[in-house]
Amino acid sequence: MLCPRVVFITGANRGLGLEFVRQFLKLGNPPDHLFATCRDPERAEELKILKKEDDRIQIIKLDVTSQTDIDAAARQVEDRVGDRGLNLLINNAGMTRKRQYVGNLNRDHLLEQFDTNVIGPLLVTQSLMPLLLRAASLYNEPDSCNKAAIVNISSILGSIAENKSGGMYGYRPSKAAMNMVTKSLHEELKNKGILVAALHPGWVRTGIGGPEATLSPEESIKDCLNVLSKLSTEKSGCLLSNNGDKIEW
Amino acid sequence: MLCPRVVFITGANRGLGLEFVRQFLKLGNPPDHLFATCRDPERAEELKILKKEDDRIQIIKLDVTSQTDIDAAARQVEDRVGDRGLNLLINNAGMTRKRQYVGNLNRDHLLEQFDTNVIGPLLVTQSLMPLLLRAASLYNEPDSCNKAAIVNISSILGSIAENKSGGMYGYRPSKAAMNMVTKSLHEELKNKGILVAALHPGWVRTGIGGPEATLSPEESIKDCLNVLSKLSTEKSGCLLSNNGDKIEW
Ligand SMILES: NC(=O)c1ccc[n+]([C@@H]2O[C@H](COP(=O)([O-])OP(=O)(O)OC[C@H]3O[C@@H](n4cnc5c(N)ncnc54)[C@H](OP(=O)(O)O)[C@@H]3O)[C@@H](O)[C@H]2O)c1
Ligand SMILES: NC(=O)c1ccc[n+]([C@@H]2O[C@H](COP(=O)([O-])OP(=O)(O)OC[C@H]3O[C@@H](n4cnc5c(N)ncnc54)[C@H](OP(=O)(O)O)[C@@H]3O)[C@@H](O)[C@H]2O)c1
Repeated sequence: MLCPRVVFITGANRGLGLEFVRQFLKLGNPPDHLFATCRDPERAEELKILKKEDDRIQIIKLDVTSQTDIDAAARQVEDRVGDRGLNLLINNAGMTRKRQYVGNLNRDHLLEQFDTNVIGPLLVTQSLMPLLLRAASLYNEPDSCNKAAIVNISSILGSIAENKSGGMYGYRPSKAAMNMVTKSLHEELKNKGILVAALHPGWVRTGIGGPEATLSPEESIKDCLNVLSKLSTEKSGCLLSNNGDKIEW
Repeated sequence: MLCPRVVFITGANRGLGLEFVRQFLKLGNPPDHLFATCRDPERAEELKILKKEDDRIQIIKLDVTSQTDIDAAARQVEDRVGDRGLNLLINNAGMTRKRQYVGNLNRDHLLEQFDTNVIGPLLVTQSLMPLLLRAASLYNEPDSCNKAAIVNISSILGSIAENKSGGMYGYRPSKAAMNMVTKSLHEELKNKGILVAALHPGWVRTGIGGPEATLSPEESIKDCLNVLSKLSTEKSGCLLSNNGDKIEW
């Protein structure tokens, strides 16, 4: 059963991040602390409504491209949960750009995608690592998302093997890079009790997925939580689909 | 036989780039135009000596992180070769950082590696694309490095599948991203007569490889030219080792 006590999510104000928050709160045994982070808490209307109904949620300001925000967020978590540590980090925040074809590429748009989709999640992970390690050290049980895990929301568009149509010169390479970060973290943490996975949520009707996508956020996150509930050492270090299958790099 | 008429190389002032220049000039049928580009032509002593002996070489200033440099370099090539186009682009320039472990990562060092190792090569390729397409359209023969090709000097450290030791959180993801760029370019160009490959040169005694590496630059580039001489549609879109074998993504 999925029941991590302390959960941290980036990009929680809309799309998949917001739906993660909703469904975590509906678990049989919901987290004691659910850190729902977003760039602009003032405008996070849905999160604020959820928080009114359920004070397990802490809304924290976090632009993943800001080291100041990252440091401040990690301090707030540390202050709240202290010795319990952090059980589950979901690096969900991400972005893409339209019209990313050769002839139309520019450095700023490309840098922005690497910064948001790879470097941000990596530096968030770095800042929260002491809390993840603390949680891992407290549980004397097999590795799981209840104990300690880092889940990077990646994409099948980041699979080089599955790329049969080319293009997307910012988004695809940034997600491939995120997949490599996932693998490196896994190799580093596999003997320290922390699982690490990259997760493709399916094609979902959100800002990034667009209105034509096949899944609703509800359907996608139901699938994702199911995958997380079964995450184990055998699947750590892999890119997993929303149905739990491994996707080739 | 490897005999591209017009060749363009980045990072040609030292290491593997310089050795590429040397060995191209020694081919049975060397290029008519060999654009040897580097950040600081003033200080490129070896290149200047080579140029004195052989005026096939054109030394061009090119920092791959500067769009101004990229635009100016593409104009110079266009002015020189005009309707002949460009046959072979070798994206060789690259960099790494020491001590890239969790706890020691910072945004600027990470951004610099993506900028140099992925975005630079991609934007250089974008600027030279019209010249590559022109060359491809002129040759009525099977695709090859003599006709039109883009070769990205990548690394086995960019293979997610082969990553068994973790770490290198800037270099590894940047090379994985470069591999994705290679695959996307291949999918886009496979019906336009341009081959695209990522090439691992082996572990070589250069600035990046360090003094303990197994191969000399001479040995590595001999291997690389051998791989390029055999490059064909079957191997386009792949990450190839210096022995010509495909490396898993
Ligand atoms: N939808 C799909 O089909 C699909 C498929 C594969 C993977 N994914 C991945 O799923 C994740 C969630 O995307 P989504 O589908 O929910 O898209 P979305 O509706 O566009 O949501 C993106 C979220 O990321 C946040 N974000 C963007 N840049 C940020 C930054 N610098 N700092 C903090 N937060 C930032 C956004 O915040 P703001 O509101 O402030 O912009 C928003 O909360 C992404 O990583 C995406 O790549 C989605
Ligand atoms: N050596 C190995 O074992 C090995 C293994 C796998 C892959 N590689 C790859 O091989 C390629 C060549 O590296 P190397 O081994 O020859 O290392 P190197 O001796 O350190 O040479 C690196 C070259 O890249 C240039 N460079 C760096 N940043 C640049 C920029 N912004 N613009 C233009 N040029 C830039 C350097 O120019 P400056 O002199 O101005 O710094 C230098 O010419 C790299 O892509 C590297 O990742 C090497």
